[in-house]
Amino acid sequence: MRQFVVLGHEAPTDPEFSLDDLPGAGRIDVLCRCVTAAFLLSYGIRTDVQVFLVIRDAATIRFDGASLRHLNPDERSTAALIRNALEARSEAVGHVEVESTPGVHVSNRGLEAVLADLDVGTLVQLHAEGRPIVDASPPDEPVFVLSDHGDPTPDEQGLLDGAGAEKVSLGPEALHGNHAIAVAHNCLDTDGYQTYRS
Amino acid sequence: MRQFVVLGHEAPTDPEFSLDDLPGAGRIDVLCRCVTAAFLLSYGIRTDVQVFLVIRDAATIRFDGASLRHLNPDERSTAALIRNALEARSEAVGHVEVESTPGVHVSNRGLEAVLADLDVGTLVQLHAEGRPIVDASPPDEPVFVLSDHGDPTPDEQGLLDGAGAEKVSLGPEALHGNHAIAVAHNCLDTDGYQTYRS
Repeated sequence: MRQFVVLGHEAPTDPEFSLDDLPGAGRIDVLCRCVTAAFLLSYGIRTDVQVFLVIRDAATIRFDGASLRHLNPDERSTAALIRNALEARSEAVGHVEVESTPGVHVSNRGLEAVLADLDVGTLVQLHAEGRPIVDASPPDEPVFVLSDHGDPTPDEQGLLDGAGAEKVSLGPEALHGNHAIAVAHNCLDTDGYQTYRS
Repeated sequence: MRQFVVLGHEAPTDPEFSLDDLPGAGRIDVLCRCVTAAFLLSYGIRTDVQVFLVIRDAATIRFDGASLRHLNPDERSTAALIRNALEARSEAVGHVEVESTPGVHVSNRGLEAVLADLDVGTLVQLHAEGRPIVDASPPDEPVFVLSDHGDPTPDEQGLLDGAGAEKVSLGPEALHGNHAIAVAHNCLDTDGYQTYRS
């Protein structure tokens, strides 16, 4: 399984935002693009993937590819799934999840609780200044951690360092999170292109 | 320079569409994501890139990274740039371009005219069943051709074949166009990861 933990620092933890202005809603558009990049293929979804959106270290929305439904490629419909999840959050008690739509679960967990609950194979922090992924690859059962348009907070970075995260870079250019996810998938799909020669 | 030609088969050629339903507007959301994937880096844009959106083989919107302004990561604002271009199309005569916003140009060209006008180094058709890019790489001054959610029409495929396009695959999974663009960029950035070892 490939898992992605995306840290959102400005996105709302309640559903009171407009689908007509996703960048204005704490850049929730960034999170939407990460979700679709993690799951979508041309003719289906990657079922062996999970995504955790950890918002403001207070709310976590988990997308499970094995049971995920209603995920479309556009940002607006993905934002609607997130809004539904944040609506259902009012029913969530502590760290226990509530399923808002098939395959989408919400809880009041922050990063520490998510890392504790994860079945971590290899914790990989995607970072422009990390070690080239081709030297680190192939991660075994990787959990990739990315931040939204901002860096992890010092607290978040401390948790990642404490959990043994290795900083890994995908190339010489610093990429947006969704593009980084697409590249990371491809790197694993092709084993750093090594297994993808004719 | 890296250039991307994206074939849109259902997107509108006039500006009468709603920004609130981009998938309903002939899947114009697909084209928006291809544009942002081609240009955006975390801290700026790739200036040495051009994108041609060839819509219904009748209208072409050209984005030039050297002069491009007002491109944001979200789909809606990119769709607004496209809508502005389609509005300006009423002023375009024949194949002559009109600049609608800085770096965005519209004309009444179809694929044949675009290919004729392109300074083609290597014409590469991204295709799930093509030759692995690592065996074809690195393309010299590549022009990548992608289709939207549908295949090229027989006429379009004939033009591509006639222009010597080589079908190239990025990996074993068929990717959405925007993710394919992100991966193609990364493959060139890292020379198939060969130059990206520590």
